[in-house]
Amino acid sequence: MDNSGATQQSSGPPQGESNHVPLSPISFLERAVRVHPDRLAVVDGDVTLSYRGFYQRSRQLAGALQAMGITPGNVVSTLGMNSRAMLEAHYGVPMAGGVLNAINARLDGASIAFIMAHAESRVLIFDRSLRSVVVKALAQLESSPPLLIEVEDASDDGSPWDRPAPHAYESLLESATPCSPRLPDDECDCIALNYTSGTTGNPKGVIYSHRGAYLNALSNTLTLKMDDRTVYLWTLPMFHCNGWTHTWAVTAAGGTHVCMRRVEPARVLNMIHARGITHMAAAPIIMTMLLDRPEASTPLPRPVLLATGGAPPNSATIARMSALGFDVLHLYGMTETYGPSLVCQFQPEWSSMTHEARARLQIRQGVGTFAIERVALKDPVTHEDVPADGQSLGHLMLRGNTIMQGYIKNPDATREAMGRGWLDTGDIAVMHEDGYIEIRDRAKDIIISGGESISSIEIEEIMMSHPAIREVAVIARPHDFWGETPHAFVVSASGTDTPNEADLLNWCREHMAHFKVPRHITFQTSLPRTSTGKLQKYALREHQKTQMATA
Amino acid sequence: MDNSGATQQSSGPPQGESNHVPLSPISFLERAVRVHPDRLAVVDGDVTLSYRGFYQRSRQLAGALQAMGITPGNVVSTLGMNSRAMLEAHYGVPMAGGVLNAINARLDGASIAFIMAHAESRVLIFDRSLRSVVVKALAQLESSPPLLIEVEDASDDGSPWDRPAPHAYESLLESATPCSPRLPDDECDCIALNYTSGTTGNPKGVIYSHRGAYLNALSNTLTLKMDDRTVYLWTLPMFHCNGWTHTWAVTAAGGTHVCMRRVEPARVLNMIHARGITHMAAAPIIMTMLLDRPEASTPLPRPVLLATGGAPPNSATIARMSALGFDVLHLYGMTETYGPSLVCQFQPEWSSMTHEARARLQIRQGVGTFAIERVALKDPVTHEDVPADGQSLGHLMLRGNTIMQGYIKNPDATREAMGRGWLDTGDIAVMHEDGYIEIRDRAKDIIISGGESISSIEIEEIMMSHPAIREVAVIARPHDFWGETPHAFVVSASGTDTPNEADLLNWCREHMAHFKVPRHITFQTSLPRTSTGKLQKYALREHQKTQMATA
Repeated sequence: MDNSGATQQSSGPPQGESNHVPLSPISFLERAVRVHPDRLAVVDGDVTLSYRGFYQRSRQLAGALQAMGITPGNVVSTLGMNSRAMLEAHYGVPMAGGVLNAINARLDGASIAFIMAHAESRVLIFDRSLRSVVVKALAQLESSPPLLIEVEDASDDGSPWDRPAPHAYESLLESATPCSPRLPDDECDCIALNYTSGTTGNPKGVIYSHRGAYLNALSNTLTLKMDDRTVYLWTLPMFHCNGWTHTWAVTAAGGTHVCMRRVEPARVLNMIHARGITHMAAAPIIMTMLLDRPEASTPLPRPVLLATGGAPPNSATIARMSALGFDVLHLYGMTETYGPSLVCQFQPEWSSMTHEARARLQIRQGVGTFAIERVALKDPVTHEDVPADGQSLGHLMLRGNTIMQGYIKNPDATREAMGRGWLDTGDIAVMHEDGYIEIRDRAKDIIISGGESISSIEIEEIMMSHPAIREVAVIARPHDFWGETPHAFVVSASGTDTPNEADLLNWCREHMAHFKVPRHITFQTSLPRTSTGKLQKYALREHQKTQMATA
Repeated sequence: MDNSGATQQSSGPPQGESNHVPLSPISFLERAVRVHPDRLAVVDGDVTLSYRGFYQRSRQLAGALQAMGITPGNVVSTLGMNSRAMLEAHYGVPMAGGVLNAINARLDGASIAFIMAHAESRVLIFDRSLRSVVVKALAQLESSPPLLIEVEDASDDGSPWDRPAPHAYESLLESATPCSPRLPDDECDCIALNYTSGTTGNPKGVIYSHRGAYLNALSNTLTLKMDDRTVYLWTLPMFHCNGWTHTWAVTAAGGTHVCMRRVEPARVLNMIHARGITHMAAAPIIMTMLLDRPEASTPLPRPVLLATGGAPPNSATIARMSALGFDVLHLYGMTETYGPSLVCQFQPEWSSMTHEARARLQIRQGVGTFAIERVALKDPVTHEDVPADGQSLGHLMLRGNTIMQGYIKNPDATREAMGRGWLDTGDIAVMHEDGYIEIRDRAKDIIISGGESISSIEIEEIMMSHPAIREVAVIARPHDFWGETPHAFVVSASGTDTPNEADLLNWCREHMAHFKVPRHITFQTSLPRTSTGKLQKYALREHQKTQMATA
């Protein structure tokens, strides 16, 4: 049989302007403004924008940035809370050909200075309320300072400003010539640069491409079932993986972005009622905060899809949220995967379960999203697959178009993370027989006791079902004989007394294998967390070290 | 300002296996089988397949094709009605690296022979019930005949078979080694070859890429709001633009394909009730057929989204379907655009309108789908945009990743259709102020009378609202003085007498500009249509010619 088939002979009709367009989230806003120009696009306090207005302002921002000298590939940093300016930056910066670097607004001056220098930021757009940390960051910046644009938010932190006045965001936009949005020359060009939280060492700059951002956003639109009736409450910070790419996904759906600068649980519940919220995303700690409010005893007027992730949620919290009327969707991801990359996809047959039974399945991280091509659990050395038996531990590895392009200026770390054909997430997990992944620990958080691997998350999940416990974190404690043993840090349930340690340990022995029972319990009034709700186990380890040294 | 930004310096982290995967609909089936292996994937008469079974059989088909010598780029033709074998071909052929050429099963032997020779088909998979036309096609085939695989469908047309016995589909699959699905080396490689209906001249072979098929399918999943509870009734032929890419979109959503080999209106209504159908797609003529059934007086148990397209629907039909409980979504597309490329996107505020008022908006072709980047109305010569005033006529032009790669072995036609940066659809339309496109005619169907352009579709839409008319088609009739005048072919409403021609003309004068009123009316018992429900205006023109010659 001759191999030169008809399609091979003429597989050369050129990719041209008519049939090849670089994939980019910019196209979502362009479509939204054409399809529903008058629909409510953004709510930010008292200010509202239609899609026409949102588009126009994004183009004005792009024009202003170009006038300031931004050319393709230049980095524009932002330091702000959730606001229309942050949303506009998600479109205006790439429209100008720039790369968006949304810095975590809760970082200290030194970290911000490190990021701006490393990213070679040309422009910094910041909230007036963050003046004091900006002043500190600029003082520590050794490279040439970026041009400064200040967003006048309601609150002024009153800190002194001893430099030339920054550009005022609103007047800059007003006087700018709207730019004609440009799509990238190549869809693999960089759209965003997001720095990891870097609990150890300096943060690493993760490169997102237009293609990856487009595909992950569409994948989220599908996964969260967003459409043109979606009203999305921004409880998740937009500086966190570009708000898990929801900054683009909500626009793709033609929904409404409702901004929230500061997450106050009572206000969240009020907004859900007042604004007809249909979707939101938040770290598990936010669910705990919501459940603590007295208003949380009123069931929701209509179901709200709440996507949670960033840290493993526990089933007790999910069950209580479900009872209240939230559809909790558990997502797993990391900066290196544009945010969400696994989803605990809800199976229709789960509908008939009790909230509690269902919640025990919902704590699993789940299966790959639409955009992820392959999910595997592998031995980190041999790269052999680990059995899907719900018990064997392996490194969670991912492959797909929504895996980062790499770490900027860090080829060694890039190679280490993804040089062997898979991104090694560094998370230790099991795969259940149904293919659902359940994370047991970060590689560095696993406890090895007498040669047995113990999952700190598994212990935490069990202890959370004790009525006297509000929060719990388990870490390894060095032990001469066993190597390591589990050490639990417990916050007791509000309104109840500190539980008796011996009672609690007895209870643990009834509910888990004896070698997993914590040898030590420390009671605290709260647990250290990052701005995004992630437990800071390294802080607990420091605490433990001090404790042990002084014991 | 120095231009060499940080992202440019190291914009070179290589696209590797971990972060670059060719976009292909094959991935939809791979994800579906991982996420819900036991969910019902295919219903075909009494046979049902889970996603596990569907995937397994597709891989077996791929293995069998490879064993028969199919290598990347080779063409595999199918000639069949909607069935699980057709669905399996949509995955198995590309999994083997092959190119799927789904031939319209209602074509005659000569046309089928032309397509197989032109496409250089290596294999033909056909339904036993189509033996007689296959025999005719093979007899007329001048090139070397393809290997033959026969699908045993329930009905045998009893025609003689004077050749060596073809491979039997089921036993071939049974003995095949399942292949490991391969993704294309390049996402722009050809996945399908679809021949236009070619009302004039030979049909042209339209090249679809894996990338375009992936993006159009996802776009359809979003547009039709399909999810894992979707039950899709296959009333649309899968050989028509790969079923508007719904063959892939339903799988992407994780829904259920319900096959229907022959569209019998009473059975369609029964299936909707018995199978819990949520979605279907059909040409407008199918809506008319459904409404003619006595069963259609029973409202639907739950809303069914019915996507219609392929020919302009009329508002009276849409209003009646809506009253029955169908959510009619009007799509526009053509073979060159992977099927759907415009959608009459339903605006939430339309919900409060009467069925009739809404239907008058729903006959518009609408706005670009997610996958289409740009929609424009242009002067075909100057390529200047025509005003969006609801009146100015222009050529509808499209641009995006879901525009064909070109016509196979036909660079001239490719250049003519899309050589100037846009695909010229050849359809004449207006753009309303809200950006919604409304097609007035095919370029060749427009009537030019006394220098005025008259839209035959506009006249048809108005005449359809006359209670005595069931179907109507309007074409140009040569006229010595005016150049052309409108000529209407009318099918009277079933059960009513042929209307009086003079009365009808008077009625037209009341409802449209006088120069648009048909000068001639011909009453017929039916109108000539293609297998996909498209009006065959060329047949009416032939009829008119004979009529005028004998007058």
